[in-house]
Amino acid sequence: MNVTGASVSELHIDARHETRDIVLPNQTEYVSQIAVDIGGSLAKIVYFTKGPTGGRLHFKKFETEKIDNCIEYIVNLLKDADQHQSQEPRPQDMAQPPRRHVRVLKATGGGAYLYHEKLTANLPGVQVEKEDEMDCLITGLNFFITEIPYEVFTYDEQDPDPMQFEAKLTDELYPYLLVNIGSGVSILKVTASDEYTRVSGTSLGGGTLWGLMSLLTNATSFDEMLDMSVTGDNRNVDLLVGDIYGTDYTKLGLKATRIASSFGKVFRMGQPDRNREFQSPDIAKSLLFMVSNNIGQIAYLNARQHNVKRIYFGGCFIRGHPITMNTLSYAINFWSNGEMKALFLRHEGHLGATGAFLKFRPIRKARHSFSYSENFVPDANTNDPGKVYCVLEDTNVELVSDQVLDDDNDSIL
Amino acid sequence: MNVTGASVSELHIDARHETRDIVLPNQTEYVSQIAVDIGGSLAKIVYFTKGPTGGRLHFKKFETEKIDNCIEYIVNLLKDADQHQSQEPRPQDMAQPPRRHVRVLKATGGGAYLYHEKLTANLPGVQVEKEDEMDCLITGLNFFITEIPYEVFTYDEQDPDPMQFEAKLTDELYPYLLVNIGSGVSILKVTASDEYTRVSGTSLGGGTLWGLMSLLTNATSFDEMLDMSVTGDNRNVDLLVGDIYGTDYTKLGLKATRIASSFGKVFRMGQPDRNREFQSPDIAKSLLFMVSNNIGQIAYLNARQHNVKRIYFGGCFIRGHPITMNTLSYAINFWSNGEMKALFLRHEGHLGATGAFLKFRPIRKARHSFSYSENFVPDANTNDPGKVYCVLEDTNVELVSDQVLDDDNDSIL
Repeated sequence: MNVTGASVSELHIDARHETRDIVLPNQTEYVSQIAVDIGGSLAKIVYFTKGPTGGRLHFKKFETEKIDNCIEYIVNLLKDADQHQSQEPRPQDMAQPPRRHVRVLKATGGGAYLYHEKLTANLPGVQVEKEDEMDCLITGLNFFITEIPYEVFTYDEQDPDPMQFEAKLTDELYPYLLVNIGSGVSILKVTASDEYTRVSGTSLGGGTLWGLMSLLTNATSFDEMLDMSVTGDNRNVDLLVGDIYGTDYTKLGLKATRIASSFGKVFRMGQPDRNREFQSPDIAKSLLFMVSNNIGQIAYLNARQHNVKRIYFGGCFIRGHPITMNTLSYAINFWSNGEMKALFLRHEGHLGATGAFLKFRPIRKARHSFSYSENFVPDANTNDPGKVYCVLEDTNVELVSDQVLDDDNDSIL
Repeated sequence: MNVTGASVSELHIDARHETRDIVLPNQTEYVSQIAVDIGGSLAKIVYFTKGPTGGRLHFKKFETEKIDNCIEYIVNLLKDADQHQSQEPRPQDMAQPPRRHVRVLKATGGGAYLYHEKLTANLPGVQVEKEDEMDCLITGLNFFITEIPYEVFTYDEQDPDPMQFEAKLTDELYPYLLVNIGSGVSILKVTASDEYTRVSGTSLGGGTLWGLMSLLTNATSFDEMLDMSVTGDNRNVDLLVGDIYGTDYTKLGLKATRIASSFGKVFRMGQPDRNREFQSPDIAKSLLFMVSNNIGQIAYLNARQHNVKRIYFGGCFIRGHPITMNTLSYAINFWSNGEMKALFLRHEGHLGATGAFLKFRPIRKARHSFSYSENFVPDANTNDPGKVYCVLEDTNVELVSDQVLDDDNDSIL
């Protein structure tokens, strides 16, 4: 695949739930494979479409519970690909016979194993090739880091421009840590393009946040939960250092505003407080802080142990949500005394699927791909954090309700 | 204070909620001070009583919310001490005039600051002396480690004798890590008797467990929550590696039974599952695993960073609860590949209060205190884990309801 001049599409997106396409202006040949990364909660798809002057990578998400919808989507993609192929003009070099594209589905994530039979049974004539999940994560991440401008960024809400894009990296890329936050969390130490170890992980991940939020609040979707947390005040449920000391614990450098105990204000034994109404937004914010802080701390401790300074956060947990990114950034900065950096990605949720997609053929390395970065500064670097939020990739599986699925099929090409 | 021959009282205890006394056979002089450690959720008291042949240290707990009860208890202890003093026979050496005991309350924990005015106002004529919380924790812990036999133990439910006592340590004590689990968690690295650093901590502590349990289950007390967790099956709410992969993730050494995501099975968006009834015992067990595993992991990562092999777990969170201790032990063993050791204490909740108590006078170092350990093997080392549970210090603040408080006052001496 020719990734020269690849960039994130900056076209206006109507739905809040879309992940932005990657534009590939120099990929003129049709690429027929599809890749799927089936995790504990979400299945992520990456596929290619060809336009008049190049191609595009598309990114979709489904709930793993609705795996049948996901497979149906793949079936339709393949049908469209066949159609496309039959309509394709023959190559200019008429000496070569027209090539038959091999129909391949690259599958990764746990679901590549769990649903392997189902996939092969429902996709006759398609080669379903399993790819290792961690391999794919690294391959995908390296692609985004090294090839896509305006993909990697830091986040700091104290900054007038909270979202600061990082330049594409060509050297001094390794070592780094990838903290992939899906239902659970995997922490990988990467020392070369094909050299990594899963050094740690935690079961307190996205599944924990959504699970506890759905039990404890009246929210019914990811977005509702996240929106709710914005207005919440965690101090109504969390016990702060100041609640215990009445002041800072100066000797230890613990500020009065520091959270001493998440949900530490909730339980009062044998008190009528037990029936006290705690507010959903306050609970949502406390949960978000709790899970994000904890991931940040465990990430820092591992980075410290392995002497790594750059920490990439991937996975479907982050969702371009400012409070989440700020909490992760703050935790890394706090624990490392500013020595380490939390890095985010606009295609955070699709690292594995993108890696699987790229497993099909070796990437043709871009020689020049500066044009985009030189000529375009996206709206993201603005003083208005609200605007930043809109520019972030803002994805949600709700997009893929059955109805939208049908509508979507019409617009695949 | 003379701690020669000090030991944990092995007298039968009726209430499940008592913390065992420490017997001091050679402390013949009356010790009039009282110590209190007021934390975010619990206030812990240590005081001395004199018997016909030596003395005893007593350990009590109150909810910090009911601080007035706690102060009332101290007032009554002081009254009793005055009575005791007036009845005390004059010293054998009649050349010395009878000494007036200074009435001192040693106070530590955040509440020593937050409630300082309240304490002085309610205890006229008593010197309320604040002591640093971390100093007291270390002083108390060192006392238990070096002076009290059958105090420190390891726990492993795979072992026919899950509870294995450690010998008292006289040398090679340092460095060690103290993980103090109260409402929140503090992690201290101790390198000498008066040399320590608070290296880390987490807001996911006891307050988090009790807070979330009280919101998510129908339990109304610590014991109910813990009892409930025994029969629960966390697999009904947690997402395991096997649920994602259908099998082990062999390449990474992740077993199918490993928890990939705590509460990862709960949230299914837009599904009727949302109204599914999750069972309290399953939720209780998942929460207990989640909080204990996480503390164990963060403790390990800090021990690793600071090159420490012995990790003591203190604080009121553990409560001699087998599943909690086993989870902490398992986590330390798992992450360290068996190189580190999780150590527990029978007076885990009273480290700070005991340290504050001992701040009054330097300890007169015991020369011989082997008699107890040589002559007595407690019932704890039995094949019956149920029996082990009973032998463990099993404390609960519910003891200190108003009624019990009144009854208790009669038996202080």
